[in-house]
Amino acid sequence: MKLRLGMIGGGQGAFIGAVHRIASRIDDQYELVCGAFSSNAERSKASGIALGITDDRVYATYQELIEKESQLPEDIRAQVISIVTPNHVHFEPAKLALENGFHVILDKPMTLTLQEAKTLKDASDKTGQLLCLTHTYTGYPMVKQARELVAANQIGKVRKVYAQYPQGWLSTLAEGGDNKQATWRTDPSQSGIAGAMGDIGTHAFNLIEYVTGLTVSHLCADINIVVPGRRLDDDGAVLLRFEGGASGVLTATQVAAGAENNVKISVYGESGGVEWQQDDANSLIVRYPDKPAEIWRTGGGYTSTAAMFNSRTPAGHPEGYLEAFANLYRNFALTIKALSNNEEPSAEMLDFPGVNEGVRGMAFIENVIASGKSEQKWTPFTI
Amino acid sequence: MKLRLGMIGGGQGAFIGAVHRIASRIDDQYELVCGAFSSNAERSKASGIALGITDDRVYATYQELIEKESQLPEDIRAQVISIVTPNHVHFEPAKLALENGFHVILDKPMTLTLQEAKTLKDASDKTGQLLCLTHTYTGYPMVKQARELVAANQIGKVRKVYAQYPQGWLSTLAEGGDNKQATWRTDPSQSGIAGAMGDIGTHAFNLIEYVTGLTVSHLCADINIVVPGRRLDDDGAVLLRFEGGASGVLTATQVAAGAENNVKISVYGESGGVEWQQDDANSLIVRYPDKPAEIWRTGGGYTSTAAMFNSRTPAGHPEGYLEAFANLYRNFALTIKALSNNEEPSAEMLDFPGVNEGVRGMAFIENVIASGKSEQKWTPFTI
Amino acid sequence: MKLRLGMIGGGQGAFIGAVHRIASRIDDQYELVCGAFSSNAERSKASGIALGITDDRVYATYQELIEKESQLPEDIRAQVISIVTPNHVHFEPAKLALENGFHVILDKPMTLTLQEAKTLKDASDKTGQLLCLTHTYTGYPMVKQARELVAANQIGKVRKVYAQYPQGWLSTLAEGGDNKQATWRTDPSQSGIAGAMGDIGTHAFNLIEYVTGLTVSHLCADINIVVPGRRLDDDGAVLLRFEGGASGVLTATQVAAGAENNVKISVYGESGGVEWQQDDANSLIVRYPDKPAEIWRTGGGYTSTAAMFNSRTPAGHPEGYLEAFANLYRNFALTIKALSNNEEPSAEMLDFPGVNEGVRGMAFIENVIASGKSEQKWTPFTI
Amino acid sequence: MKLRLGMIGGGQGAFIGAVHRIASRIDDQYELVCGAFSSNAERSKASGIALGITDDRVYATYQELIEKESQLPEDIRAQVISIVTPNHVHFEPAKLALENGFHVILDKPMTLTLQEAKTLKDASDKTGQLLCLTHTYTGYPMVKQARELVAANQIGKVRKVYAQYPQGWLSTLAEGGDNKQATWRTDPSQSGIAGAMGDIGTHAFNLIEYVTGLTVSHLCADINIVVPGRRLDDDGAVLLRFEGGASGVLTATQVAAGAENNVKISVYGESGGVEWQQDDANSLIVRYPDKPAEIWRTGGGYTSTAAMFNSRTPAGHPEGYLEAFANLYRNFALTIKALSNNEEPSAEMLDFPGVNEGVRGMAFIENVIASGKSEQKWTPFTI
Repeated sequence: MKLRLGMIGGGQGAFIGAVHRIASRIDDQYELVCGAFSSNAERSKASGIALGITDDRVYATYQELIEKESQLPEDIRAQVISIVTPNHVHFEPAKLALENGFHVILDKPMTLTLQEAKTLKDASDKTGQLLCLTHTYTGYPMVKQARELVAANQIGKVRKVYAQYPQGWLSTLAEGGDNKQATWRTDPSQSGIAGAMGDIGTHAFNLIEYVTGLTVSHLCADINIVVPGRRLDDDGAVLLRFEGGASGVLTATQVAAGAENNVKISVYGESGGVEWQQDDANSLIVRYPDKPAEIWRTGGGYTSTAAMFNSRTPAGHPEGYLEAFANLYRNFALTIKALSNNEEPSAEMLDFPGVNEGVRGMAFIENVIASGKSEQKWTPFTI
Repeated sequence: MKLRLGMIGGGQGAFIGAVHRIASRIDDQYELVCGAFSSNAERSKASGIALGITDDRVYATYQELIEKESQLPEDIRAQVISIVTPNHVHFEPAKLALENGFHVILDKPMTLTLQEAKTLKDASDKTGQLLCLTHTYTGYPMVKQARELVAANQIGKVRKVYAQYPQGWLSTLAEGGDNKQATWRTDPSQSGIAGAMGDIGTHAFNLIEYVTGLTVSHLCADINIVVPGRRLDDDGAVLLRFEGGASGVLTATQVAAGAENNVKISVYGESGGVEWQQDDANSLIVRYPDKPAEIWRTGGGYTSTAAMFNSRTPAGHPEGYLEAFANLYRNFALTIKALSNNEEPSAEMLDFPGVNEGVRGMAFIENVIASGKSEQKWTPFTI
Repeated sequence: MKLRLGMIGGGQGAFIGAVHRIASRIDDQYELVCGAFSSNAERSKASGIALGITDDRVYATYQELIEKESQLPEDIRAQVISIVTPNHVHFEPAKLALENGFHVILDKPMTLTLQEAKTLKDASDKTGQLLCLTHTYTGYPMVKQARELVAANQIGKVRKVYAQYPQGWLSTLAEGGDNKQATWRTDPSQSGIAGAMGDIGTHAFNLIEYVTGLTVSHLCADINIVVPGRRLDDDGAVLLRFEGGASGVLTATQVAAGAENNVKISVYGESGGVEWQQDDANSLIVRYPDKPAEIWRTGGGYTSTAAMFNSRTPAGHPEGYLEAFANLYRNFALTIKALSNNEEPSAEMLDFPGVNEGVRGMAFIENVIASGKSEQKWTPFTI
Repeated sequence: MKLRLGMIGGGQGAFIGAVHRIASRIDDQYELVCGAFSSNAERSKASGIALGITDDRVYATYQELIEKESQLPEDIRAQVISIVTPNHVHFEPAKLALENGFHVILDKPMTLTLQEAKTLKDASDKTGQLLCLTHTYTGYPMVKQARELVAANQIGKVRKVYAQYPQGWLSTLAEGGDNKQATWRTDPSQSGIAGAMGDIGTHAFNLIEYVTGLTVSHLCADINIVVPGRRLDDDGAVLLRFEGGASGVLTATQVAAGAENNVKISVYGESGGVEWQQDDANSLIVRYPDKPAEIWRTGGGYTSTAAMFNSRTPAGHPEGYLEAFANLYRNFALTIKALSNNEEPSAEMLDFPGVNEGVRGMAFIENVIASGKSEQKWTPFTI
């Protein structure tokens, strides 16, 4: 039985809305039944029709969506609401949805402020409604394999962590015109206090904590606005310290002209290292001091339960970004279904980013922007 | 409006059926409404239920499916039938489907014999019902880009073509036990006269003719059964000659122990070359004698109309095997819709493998197996 | 103590002569003491002076070199003669040198004909003077590692062998003008009966037999002159059968426009495979059906004795073509020194291509060209 | 005519001494004529003999070498002295050599302290004797190509610079036993105030300034001793600011277990980027926002004068670490010869690291170690 899905945002022309919808379909766990696809009522309507939603369930506003859907019979109303709007339209609809009995899938970063994120977490905790935050990169099978190898002590105690997220699409002042993506992502009123750090830095941060199982304790950030006229950071580099003594470096930039989207993580422990990058997403390189490096591959018969659980084809049939995204949707759905059947979700089902990751992500944004402005070198990572 | 899809084969445990269904969903052009998922009626029923098909449209046999669906009202009955069974159950259901007014999506190779393939082509031509043959690899954006660069004379007149398709999964005698894939693909009664040549050789052959726009005129094949006890070829290498004078080599093997599925093609012309391989599916390497090689990338703003038409995300968000597969489904759907709206389908819509490719694929199988048995060196490629 | 080296050919402007000289210097086993660097006496003189050779030991002809050096005192005269001339000036100087007490380093292919090669082998056997044939690619540490893994049964009994040697530098009719390389290598009177097959096909053939330890028993060749006006083959593809039942494919072309020199070999056995290519010369990929592939690296502490013996730096300091070439020179020198000290050379010292490889290489040329002209499919590999 | 070379250090068992000697031989510009190969007189003697140095020119100490060689006739005495000792034996012999009329080749880092480096620079300036500092990585042809593309504004004004230098060989406490390399490089009395930062951080720093043409103005360093019991830093990460406004990150570590030596640099400007890494040393990736990335290759006919000047073989014949090293030796020799002939050395000849790079490298060490200890975030880069 598919979960009934509603969507807030993601109207015609939006990028990430379409990605969410594809992700929701790949494993056939969802049926899109309603939406408020745009703050423009007409565009919302047109988008809904194009998506095959029946007229009466295309709403003009998210408030209307939540209100009206709440009133529908239990076996008809949406069960999960995907929120794929710019950041400033995350908190309120998410809160409203949770409080009205909907599970929520939310694009990252979670909110505009850490305080809002905490409030959302409370709302989820209190209502028992679940929230999935779409940190896509943790959905890749080989990222999960990396996490498990680290957890299984395959590389020994972690010492060094490097994550890089280079993009080039904001190398020029692209905002202000037709480029909707550029415009809202560089606008403080829609994006929050961070630009690149919020948009992609949080992904790198999440990837680091996910793979290593460590938590950042201190940081020292160099945050820049490189393109003249821009209002939010488009570049940053962050020195990291972790609880337990490891250290690391996170870089994220949107002005690496010519770079696409090759997020990469390298983790080195006392006895080896793991390396993963999106440009070769189906491979995980595992290095050792005293024997040949290994290439672990998505779908390889030797991969872990979690890696296998999150792939669909045998090794050599590349799975990509959309499949990683779909893994979040699928695992979230399986968890919801298990709980609604009074079953204990398996560890594999529960393996999706949620409110805790959202709160830490928002803390990362606030801490990293503050550090960027500070004359002090190391600042504690506070929540 | 989605096309209503029926499926023959693809019951629980089958590999390719699930791939077809994912491919059908990714772009939301299809709704699975009926199926005969297994020759075992109970398993068909169970599979259908698991897929959310209403009970009355899960059929025990493909004959029943076609008969019963034909009798349903036009706005309810399936419009497209996907046939994802072993090769020996391609021809009859496909023919029946075409003759009863269904469009057909058919797994490759098209049939058991060239004669059957020709008959199917005739059936399609006569009925006007369309057939899409799932030669997945031509669905990759960078394969399309390669084809267009060749067609646009970017590398000059083609001289040399190399295609390789190495797999290792049949390195041992895996057939005869629980491994259903191994069992039917090595069984002449289900697979036809060819093993590896039919299963993957036809993919390489199709890729060659698709990218180069050339047609094979002569061949000289070395066809082997490497694993003792196997009944069909598991390995082969074929020297090729093309109309117009180019030459090439096609290798396909299923006994390259440790190899996954890295199908690769290299084409060299008078003034450059193109190289694509599935392990780096989002890149196309273009080589020149006198300037740096170029890396063309899926989603790159500079890519061709067809390449863009067949990708969903900006460069750096890897698209993989399932998306390539989905492109076949999507283009086929767009063509059907255009035609049913009395519109001319665009060149991009019409870009899917069909009956002509199916006939040539079966001709490849018959020619290559005959050549493998011949003492003669070069044999003409006859249809 | 360095070996005293004389050189025939390799005057100013020659490519391979300079490579030989660098190779001879890298490990400091040789001192260049004399030469007949050009068939033009003046150019020979000028070249010798530029190389710091004393005037009286720069000769006008190879005959003079051998005659005069023979008459010098034993502790002054050259001990080893490097012959780096076009193919038609291999046999006579090599034979003369061997018969006059010199060891010989000879560029490949060994001679113009198989009969000459056999005669040279006899001369070496009879005189006890050694001959090293510069099949460079077997000098790479990771090629040696591949050979040893195969010999140690790491991938099981060999079944399939693929070797490719793509070059693009003869994509146009470059011969006849200033391009000396193009001119002699496409001229039957200087190059022999083969062009690409002799120039690079023999390298691929040698690499195959070296890595696998197998010998070719039958072949079926497609040999082409692609560029109009050319007099020798510039392209070929060869189906291979080996003693013991393995099969393979060798391709070598000089008209792959844009290709550089990426010679590559893949060998698959019953339980795994090895892959090496010159573009990533310091890595050897080893594949297994049931565990992650491995990346063996030049200088890795875990590599074999022979691999270590043929590298100079720790892993991560890339060694290249010149070092591979130097390994031939070095091992040859160590063998000569050991023998002259009445010591048994080690297996590592004896690891250089010699007369047997030369004879097989010439047999390859004769067999492959004959097969290319034959209507018969498989022809036995005869010597 | 070869330059006569003397060597201080580099006795039997030393790593870098052998590398220097190979580098000196590759292009035949030097003849090793004398040495003080070890502080142990007997070992020096044995090393010298093994290297074929005549007995009277193997010295017990560097002082003796310089004194005695100074007294030899001008056409016999060494002209260039290579100093390949641990860091604490750089300054005095180099100064003595310069002051006694020898040119000097010196392993990096230049000295133990910045003050010593300045003094050496003064000595060179005053005496007119030249000094070459072996920052190997700037010797790679594709590093030179990168520098030239940046200088030619191919990627626009530089904005971001990333350099990483990961090694793993000091992941355990390897010092104190037989491992001479580990022992001296982690010993403050021999290595100076820095470990990893001096050993490999200076390479990364030099590479950055060489490729970009920029100078660091401020830095903020995280400097760590990761392995318990170690006395000098084995890991560090440094945020950088450059004159003119660009920023960057430099990481260097010797505790990335399993990492080899893959130094890498990425530079992004307003309109593109360049990327080079030692593991693929013969390729330079050049990225653009609006067209395919390019792969520039060592030996490619389209490469710059400097790139061609520093390669020996056509594209596709990999040149490696030893050839890069040799380029420093070769260019230094050509400069010396030109000057001694009263000719103006060409820009290509003068392209080797010298006293200015040495002074900046020592400044880097002092600034980075100070920053590592500072609570202040950004500290100016002072000399």
